[in-house]
Amino acid sequence: MKESVFNKIRNEQFKGKVVTAEEAASWIKDGMKLGMSGFTRAGDAKVIPMALVERAKTEKFKVDVYTGASLGPEVDQHMAEAGIINKRLPFQADKGIRNKINADEITYVDQHLSHTAEQVRQGLVGPIDFAIIEALAITEEGLIIPTTSVGNSAIFVQEAKHIIIELNVSHPEGLEGMHDIYTPARQGERQPIPMTATSDRLGSIGIPVDPEKVMGIVVSTDLDAPSTIVPPDEETATIASHLINFLREEIKAGRLTESLAPLQSGVGSVANAVFAGFLDSEFTDLEVYSEVLQDAVFDLIDAGKVKFASGCSITLAEEKGKQVYGNLDQYRDKLVLRPQEISNHPEIIRRLGLISINTALECDIYGNVNSTHVSGTRMMNGIGGSGDFARNSRLGIFVTKSYAKGGKISSIVPFVSHVDHTEHDVDVLVTEQGIADLRGLAPKDRVELIIENCAHPDYRPQLRAYFTEAVAQTGGHQTPHILEKAFSWHTNLMKNGTMLEAVLQVQK
Amino acid sequence: MKESVFNKIRNEQFKGKVVTAEEAASWIKDGMKLGMSGFTRAGDAKVIPMALVERAKTEKFKVDVYTGASLGPEVDQHMAEAGIINKRLPFQADKGIRNKINADEITYVDQHLSHTAEQVRQGLVGPIDFAIIEALAITEEGLIIPTTSVGNSAIFVQEAKHIIIELNVSHPEGLEGMHDIYTPARQGERQPIPMTATSDRLGSIGIPVDPEKVMGIVVSTDLDAPSTIVPPDEETATIASHLINFLREEIKAGRLTESLAPLQSGVGSVANAVFAGFLDSEFTDLEVYSEVLQDAVFDLIDAGKVKFASGCSITLAEEKGKQVYGNLDQYRDKLVLRPQEISNHPEIIRRLGLISINTALECDIYGNVNSTHVSGTRMMNGIGGSGDFARNSRLGIFVTKSYAKGGKISSIVPFVSHVDHTEHDVDVLVTEQGIADLRGLAPKDRVELIIENCAHPDYRPQLRAYFTEAVAQTGGHQTPHILEKAFSWHTNLMKNGTMLEAVLQVQK
Repeated sequence: MKESVFNKIRNEQFKGKVVTAEEAASWIKDGMKLGMSGFTRAGDAKVIPMALVERAKTEKFKVDVYTGASLGPEVDQHMAEAGIINKRLPFQADKGIRNKINADEITYVDQHLSHTAEQVRQGLVGPIDFAIIEALAITEEGLIIPTTSVGNSAIFVQEAKHIIIELNVSHPEGLEGMHDIYTPARQGERQPIPMTATSDRLGSIGIPVDPEKVMGIVVSTDLDAPSTIVPPDEETATIASHLINFLREEIKAGRLTESLAPLQSGVGSVANAVFAGFLDSEFTDLEVYSEVLQDAVFDLIDAGKVKFASGCSITLAEEKGKQVYGNLDQYRDKLVLRPQEISNHPEIIRRLGLISINTALECDIYGNVNSTHVSGTRMMNGIGGSGDFARNSRLGIFVTKSYAKGGKISSIVPFVSHVDHTEHDVDVLVTEQGIADLRGLAPKDRVELIIENCAHPDYRPQLRAYFTEAVAQTGGHQTPHILEKAFSWHTNLMKNGTMLEAVLQVQK
Repeated sequence: MKESVFNKIRNEQFKGKVVTAEEAASWIKDGMKLGMSGFTRAGDAKVIPMALVERAKTEKFKVDVYTGASLGPEVDQHMAEAGIINKRLPFQADKGIRNKINADEITYVDQHLSHTAEQVRQGLVGPIDFAIIEALAITEEGLIIPTTSVGNSAIFVQEAKHIIIELNVSHPEGLEGMHDIYTPARQGERQPIPMTATSDRLGSIGIPVDPEKVMGIVVSTDLDAPSTIVPPDEETATIASHLINFLREEIKAGRLTESLAPLQSGVGSVANAVFAGFLDSEFTDLEVYSEVLQDAVFDLIDAGKVKFASGCSITLAEEKGKQVYGNLDQYRDKLVLRPQEISNHPEIIRRLGLISINTALECDIYGNVNSTHVSGTRMMNGIGGSGDFARNSRLGIFVTKSYAKGGKISSIVPFVSHVDHTEHDVDVLVTEQGIADLRGLAPKDRVELIIENCAHPDYRPQLRAYFTEAVAQTGGHQTPHILEKAFSWHTNLMKNGTMLEAVLQVQK
């Protein structure tokens, strides 16, 4: 055993367990259920998945893959494309697996990210044959130290029949001590989660494990796949600017202070750009209580804007990753990584009163949001944590550009083709056009704000016409609709390649 | 002052404040915002609303009415029909006000029942000019003892500029001591809610009030309007039977014990019938953690089946009310009434791991539920607490008859015309036909269970045909739909009076 590995396995009971990836992969049989570490391309096991992909060249088998969130290419691209994933949950964000899902070749269960752990605990997800967990080290006390994410690893380790550890020697040692592992007891037997501030520590620095269950340790040197977010553009910067102006108004109204409230932001480029917008703002002493900590969070820490960030994973672009992981000591007292059950827990989200910022695919004139399904049928990524946060936060904000595909798609439609967030949970909508504050408003009173402030000007006449006709046809019901035409924008897009009505007119 | 009244105002600072209903009503001006006690026809102020209705005969004015939930006829029928309600939230269930809402004459904001208090605290609902609170007594310490509900009274009293108390001398004195008033601090400044069992007491027996804010006390003798639920029929009894068999299977699977988990049931006849079903079951030592405690809960206490019930209101039919209120001592150690912010709090619902049972208007083949809008446009009652409970409970169960209007309407449709509960939050669906356990299933895998187990046989061929065509058209996307036909059942109903396709065929 190399010294670097020897030093990372600090408990005698684990030292004799090192095996090759091929051997560990050989234990995994057709039909098994795997609980894998990883959350948004961070902290996922990599070499065992690739050994499974290799095995698939000569052997037919399929497994269920349960994770924290989306994984890197080893699983969500290569395992998917090798045809060895039967069922996948609770989130993905890779084209490789997405195509298989929408071709009915992989069963995908899209779940609230705080819910999976409860379902594992109840045995509804599982029983899990193998937990496969990337680790930074195994401590003297036998704790598994996670790497760049915690995700669902703690509950997988607790509930799985067997465990395989991928000991990754390439992650910086400074990650040790940044995790806070707290696992609630069964429902009905648990105590309040003892957290009243984003920086509170509740548990241990690693995941407790029964050494008997650990079948093998595989050494890995593969780094996380870097994040795929793109830098802010003019429109996402404008969205950030509208949002920050709105928060200034909330301060004036006495509903927020200068340090705002703990911020949550969904994964992806738009959400990252919104956070980046805080860089040039006057706000300071900010706190983050989120799932993924993306580049902008670290830029805000570097700039002295964010004083503490709690997440369940760190997902960075290549350059930012080098800087952060090369200087981890700077972040030691400003970061904590928690299980996603805690980072996304309604109890904490409501108690701390988060400001949550998540991305919409489309929003309708009454404020219902579709986060997941293109044209109502084709899965994009998944709901992720947006439902955990939006429903329970102080301010549930959704952001989107007002259009897509060069204007052929309006993000504001008469009736969303799939509902992930109901009218009850969408407080504020922001596009590059402006902002609609929907709080306390009845459905009909939201319409003008959404159309005039958020929709792209090209689509406003069509939206106004739909609403006017719907009001006339129903006589002013609570939520006027013309059901025959509710999805006509989507069907127009499918038939004519655009939601713009001019084409409809020509077709008539 | 009559002795009965004198004895109920036990603090000197309040004794001089008694006025007539007419005088109190005269303080309420056009445009004011009223925070009123009451939750599902229980514990609402009655004589001041009727004095306002009287005033409306000679004066034009309108007020906003914020409450706990639906109120009795004094407000939700008579004030509505008198045209003096401008805006109403967060819930109603009266034909009088419903007609005005759907004629665009009253603005109605349909909210999660746990959310209103947060919005009042933030000033988004409000600022409240007058809290009008029915009380059983004012204690020596100056606490307002509520009557048959707590609802949002505590937060209204805390945040309102002025308070009027309707001291109701007809309610039984034994209600005193049954309330537990606990109000969380502002978000970000609050502690965990210190509850780990349904019977835990967290606060005081009455609502703390600044005596300076109390402008008047009006004496009332009017009793709550009795509940309008109808007794279980053959079909609701069958629904209960399916549900109880399902719970037996959960025990066998090791996910529940013989005492189940704290039960929540929505308001109304179907939900009451389901609870009544437990009467003939083997289950014992049951606990209820719900909003409204309806007749069946007391029947279950009487039968020794329920050992403790926590709610935020008691709403009973006339006969049951006489029995319960005539023998309140029997229930003293088995009941607690809390603010709805606590009875419906996601923190507690998730911690205790409730089994929640709520009513659907319609459900689609993928498990999305419409609880509120007839044909997607016309408001029925409101979402109530169903969203608070279903999202955060251990088991989110929805019940409905499989059909309505003598078979002209199918409660199972291709695409619900309004979404209140998304596919992510609906664990189990029960109709008189059977039960669909949707937990852990992908959308396409839910379809057969919902159609074959829950839909009425008359509608199954149509549902199968829709799904088959949708799968073929999309090539097996995550959630197959034919958007052109998604609402064809609803439009057929509007045009031809039925969702049955035979009529569609004839029309072609």
